[in-house]
Amino acid sequence: TPTFRIALIAGDGIGKEVMPEGLRVVMAAAERFGFELDCRTIDWASCDYYAEHGQMMPDDWKEQLKGVDALYFGAVGWPATVPDHVSLWGSLLKFRREFDQYINLRPVRLFEGVPCPLAGRKPGDIDYLVVRENTEGEYTSLGGVMYEGTEREIVIQESVFSRHGTDRVLRYAYELAQARKKKHLTVATKSNGIAISMPWWDGRADTIGRDYPEVKVDKQHIDILSARFVLQPTRFDVVVASNLFGDILSDLGPATTGTIGLAPSANLNPDRKFPSLFEPVHGSAPDIYGQNIANPIAMIWSGALMLDFLTQGQGIGRAAHDAIVAAIEAVLREGPLTRDLGGTASTTELGMAIAQRI
Amino acid sequence: TPTFRIALIAGDGIGKEVMPEGLRVVMAAAERFGFELDCRTIDWASCDYYAEHGQMMPDDWKEQLKGVDALYFGAVGWPATVPDHVSLWGSLLKFRREFDQYINLRPVRLFEGVPCPLAGRKPGDIDYLVVRENTEGEYTSLGGVMYEGTEREIVIQESVFSRHGTDRVLRYAYELAQARKKKHLTVATKSNGIAISMPWWDGRADTIGRDYPEVKVDKQHIDILSARFVLQPTRFDVVVASNLFGDILSDLGPATTGTIGLAPSANLNPDRKFPSLFEPVHGSAPDIYGQNIANPIAMIWSGALMLDFLTQGQGIGRAAHDAIVAAIEAVLREGPLTRDLGGTASTTELGMAIAQRI
Ligand SMILES: CC(C)[C@H](C(=O)O)[C@@H](O)C(=O)O
Ligand SMILES: CC(C)[C@H](C(=O)O)[C@@H](O)C(=O)O
Repeated sequence: TPTFRIALIAGDGIGKEVMPEGLRVVMAAAERFGFELDCRTIDWASCDYYAEHGQMMPDDWKEQLKGVDALYFGAVGWPATVPDHVSLWGSLLKFRREFDQYINLRPVRLFEGVPCPLAGRKPGDIDYLVVRENTEGEYTSLGGVMYEGTEREIVIQESVFSRHGTDRVLRYAYELAQARKKKHLTVATKSNGIAISMPWWDGRADTIGRDYPEVKVDKQHIDILSARFVLQPTRFDVVVASNLFGDILSDLGPATTGTIGLAPSANLNPDRKFPSLFEPVHGSAPDIYGQNIANPIAMIWSGALMLDFLTQGQGIGRAAHDAIVAAIEAVLREGPLTRDLGGTASTTELGMAIAQRI
Repeated sequence: TPTFRIALIAGDGIGKEVMPEGLRVVMAAAERFGFELDCRTIDWASCDYYAEHGQMMPDDWKEQLKGVDALYFGAVGWPATVPDHVSLWGSLLKFRREFDQYINLRPVRLFEGVPCPLAGRKPGDIDYLVVRENTEGEYTSLGGVMYEGTEREIVIQESVFSRHGTDRVLRYAYELAQARKKKHLTVATKSNGIAISMPWWDGRADTIGRDYPEVKVDKQHIDILSARFVLQPTRFDVVVASNLFGDILSDLGPATTGTIGLAPSANLNPDRKFPSLFEPVHGSAPDIYGQNIANPIAMIWSGALMLDFLTQGQGIGRAAHDAIVAAIEAVLREGPLTRDLGGTASTTELGMAIAQRI
C-alpha cells in the first residue's frame, strides 16, 4: 500500500485542539481509500518548546524532517510569552522559506449551511482561489533603526521582490486560471502608492500574461480590491497577490464566507524538492484555547489538500480529498456545528461527525 | 463676514463631475450660515495638464496656492494615458507630504436608507473612524532594481517610519479615542510578518498609550482586522493604521456600509502651518466617467469636514458641517439616489437635492 510520511506539528493554542481532529479524518480516509500514513509527531515549533530551549526549533530540525513528504501543521503563536515575530520567524516562516514553499494556495468558498455575513449571497456566489506569494516580498527582517532611542529615530523596512520569485507565482496563477471555466485572473497591486516594487510587479504580470492570451486579467489596487471582496464577490476566480496582500485577502475572503474557522491553506513547493506544508489559515487563537470549542474544519480541509497534493491531484489522494470535502459539506448542512457557526458542538464532536462520514 | 479661501482642484474623471456638486452644497451652506468662500479654480493636478506639460503641476504650484486655507480636491488618475504612480506622486501624494498633512481622517458610517452589504446590520452598528498616517511608511519611491532586465532581477522597496511621524498619528488617535464614549482604540499591525517596522510600531503604540490610561487598546494584525471589519464591525471605535494599512481599511470599511461613493476624507495638517486637503475616498473611476452617474456624496461630505476643520470644530463651520450631514442623511432616507445605491438619479440631481435641504 502507498505510504505517506507526514510530520505532525500541532504548535500552540488551538493548533493542539484541531490537530487531533484533522488527523482523525485523514486516518479515516486512509482506511477507506487504502493508503497508509507514517506519522512523526513533532513537539517543537511551539512556544512551549521555546520556553524550555530559548528557540522555536532544534538546530537539527531539517535532519529530523528528512524523508518526510508533508508537514501537517496546526498553528504557532503565544504572544503572552513569546513575541509573534520571534515565534513565527522561528517556525512557520522558516519552513515556508527554507523548504521553498513559494505558493500559498487558499480556496475561498461559501458553503451551504453556513450563514453568510454578506446579505443575499448564496453558495456558488463566493468561490475563488487566492494564490499568495509565500517566500519573499514584504515579509522580511531586513532594515533597521537609525538614531535609536532618540526623538529622531527612523526605521527602514525593506521589501524584496525577485523576478524568480514573482514570475513563478504569477505563472502558477495564470496556469490555474487557464485551467478553470471562467479563466479570470485578478492581480493585486498598489502601484499608485508603492512606487518601486508595485509598478515593477505589474510589469511582470503583463510579461507573463503574454503566454496566456486566453486568460482575462484584471489589475486591482489592494484598497479597492478589498472593498470588492465585500461588494462584488462573484467577480473573482483566481486572485494572485504578494505575500502581504495575499495574507490580507486570504483572511478577508474567508470572513465573507462566514468564518475563518473553515479556511484551509496549502504552502506548496510545486517542484517537490522539499516537503509542502498544510495548515489552517486561522492562528492559535489564545482567546478561545482550552475550551475545546475551536472549529476543526480548516485543519481537516487542509488535510484534504495535503492528500490531493501528495498524489498530484489524482488517484486515491484525489478521491480522499473529494470524500473529505463532501463530508465537510454534509456536516455543514446537517450539523453538528461549533460555536463560531452558531452551534454548540465541541471541536471533538465536529471532528468525529466528519470522520464518520468518510 | 468670515471668508475662507479655497482652492478647487477637480482633477480627473469623476472628480470633474462631483466637484461642482460639492461646491454647490458648500455654497448653499455659506449662504445659510453667513460666511464667504473665496474660490480659486485650479486646472492643474490633472492628467489633462500632464498631457500638455509633461508634469502634473506647474513648478510654482506652491506659489499659486499661497494664502489658501484649504484644498477641495476631486480625484486624480487616468491610467490610460498616465501611469498611476506618476499622476499620484506628482499631485495628491505631493500635497500630503509637502503640506505635511499627516492625518488622514476617514469616518465610516452606515446610514439609514443605504442597503448594507452585511447581513442584519443596521445604522448605528457601523460607526467608527479610521485614522491613517498620511506622509510616510510604505508609500515611498525609495529602493530600486538590481540586475535589471536579467533573470536575476531583484527589487528593493523601502518603507520608512519615523518616530516623529508615528508618534504624532498615534497621539492624534489616542486623543480622538479618549474624547469619545467608547474610548476604544484599535491599532493595526503586522508585527508577526513584517519583522522590523511593525514590532517597532507596536512599541510606539505602547509608549504613547501610557499617557492615555483610560483608552482601551487592542492591537490587531491587518489580516484578521480586515476579517473583523466584516464579521464584527460593531467592535470598532477609532482605528489607527500606517499609510498602507489605513488605505486598505478605509476602502474596506466604507464598502461594508454599502458603497465607497459615500466615504469622505480629511487630509489634515493639524498644526495649521499648511493648508489641509479634503477629498472623497473614491478615485477618478474612468469606467463610469462621462455619464453623470457618480455619487457626489463623498465629495459633499468632504466639504462638510472642510468647513468643520476651518473653524476648529466650532461656530458656523461646525453648524454648516452638521447641516450638510443632516441633508445627506435626509436624502439617503428619502431619495433621490444614484445608481450605486439602487436609484436612477444623476450626479447633478443628487447634488441639487442635498443643496436644497441646506
Ligand atoms: C490614489 C491613491 C494613491 C490613494 C492612496 O493610496 O492613498 C487613494 O487610494 C486614497 O486612499 O486616497
Ligand atoms: C502567523 C502569520 C505570520 C501568518 C502570515 O502572516 O503569513 C498567518 O497570518 C498566515 O496567513 O499564514
